[in-house]
Amino acid sequence: MLQLYFSPMACSLASRIALMEAGIEARYHLVHLWTKKVLEDDGDFLAVAPKGAVPVLVLENGERLTESAAVLQYIADLKPELGLAPRPGDPDRYRLQEWLSFIGTEIHKGFLFPTFWYKDDASLAKPRARIGQTLSVPSAHLAHREFLVGDRFTVADAHLAWALLLLRAAGVDVAQWPDLAGYLARIQARPQVKAAVGIEMQLWKSLAA
Amino acid sequence: MLQLYFSPMACSLASRIALMEAGIEARYHLVHLWTKKVLEDDGDFLAVAPKGAVPVLVLENGERLTESAAVLQYIADLKPELGLAPRPGDPDRYRLQEWLSFIGTEIHKGFLFPTFWYKDDASLAKPRARIGQTLSVPSAHLAHREFLVGDRFTVADAHLAWALLLLRAAGVDVAQWPDLAGYLARIQARPQVKAAVGIEMQLWKSLAA
Repeated sequence: MLQLYFSPMACSLASRIALMEAGIEARYHLVHLWTKKVLEDDGDFLAVAPKGAVPVLVLENGERLTESAAVLQYIADLKPELGLAPRPGDPDRYRLQEWLSFIGTEIHKGFLFPTFWYKDDASLAKPRARIGQTLSVPSAHLAHREFLVGDRFTVADAHLAWALLLLRAAGVDVAQWPDLAGYLARIQARPQVKAAVGIEMQLWKSLAA
Repeated sequence: MLQLYFSPMACSLASRIALMEAGIEARYHLVHLWTKKVLEDDGDFLAVAPKGAVPVLVLENGERLTESAAVLQYIADLKPELGLAPRPGDPDRYRLQEWLSFIGTEIHKGFLFPTFWYKDDASLAKPRARIGQTLSVPSAHLAHREFLVGDRFTVADAHLAWALLLLRAAGVDVAQWPDLAGYLARIQARPQVKAAVGIEMQLWKSLAA
């Protein structure tokens, strides 16, 4: 059985959504990102993943795959018939990779990461000044589309929906971009997305309590 | 013919290396990233690519593909027999995607981008404090390997070699990690890498002059 090391509401949420949309059962291990401890046995997360970051997907052969862009494509390819990623060879596969990269670099690493890890205003002034321009890109793309890639839900939507949820927590009002807000509402209405977010919100609240 | 919008020594250098290693001729358009102008006709780069970032690969059908992780895989897949990326279905393809994501998020967007775009010490204190830990990851991986993925040069090596070259310009002495320094020397000794870097260094110097 696949195993996913995750932290509630961290970017690993996109991998949980992908697994649940794919109907793949997995064992989930909760990681405290600040202390680098695995909750269930107080184990050292750095021994699992020297990078100290989630997601970490433990494959059937025991190998560990990291980085959302890779983990999400791996999960999607386990059930190619579901179309969670366009098949290799389909030109849209590169569009999926393009969006995964944009979300991972521009939104996550360029804005959400410093917001939640650096926190001080000095570190955040310039990332804050850029985020509006960054969000105009997916907003324009989604003005007349239901999904990021092609005409169906893909793991790129799982990734962007997670990022948009976190933007709210980071003090960015997504309602300024009605096309993004409408998109997020549509994606959040999907039963598996709703269930995945519900699980992680509850875990997040119980850890914060 | 493919066309690549690039800026000298920016991350689009990895795409030039990939094209040259693949033996694919392309038309290259130089972009001033600060002014968002295309050099050859003083044209508006934002009309070509609303994100205002390089690389932009113009495909044979006129579509434009952005983001290094996507562009590099696209180029590699044009010549699958060269092994510039493991073929889809090969487990190593996910390792390639993992490295492309790590380089794009942790090294480029987490450190090089703020270094060259934000510049002020207040913005850079925390990224600077992290870069050593970040570089320990590829350093450990390359301690007993010649290349990032499998046993041959891939587009992930083009990406990392570019990042390591820029780290020097960003004031990080890569010699602190002998395994990275040795790797960079090996990759730079490849004739096509040497040629690609030579072209862009010359352009960079002529623009700076």
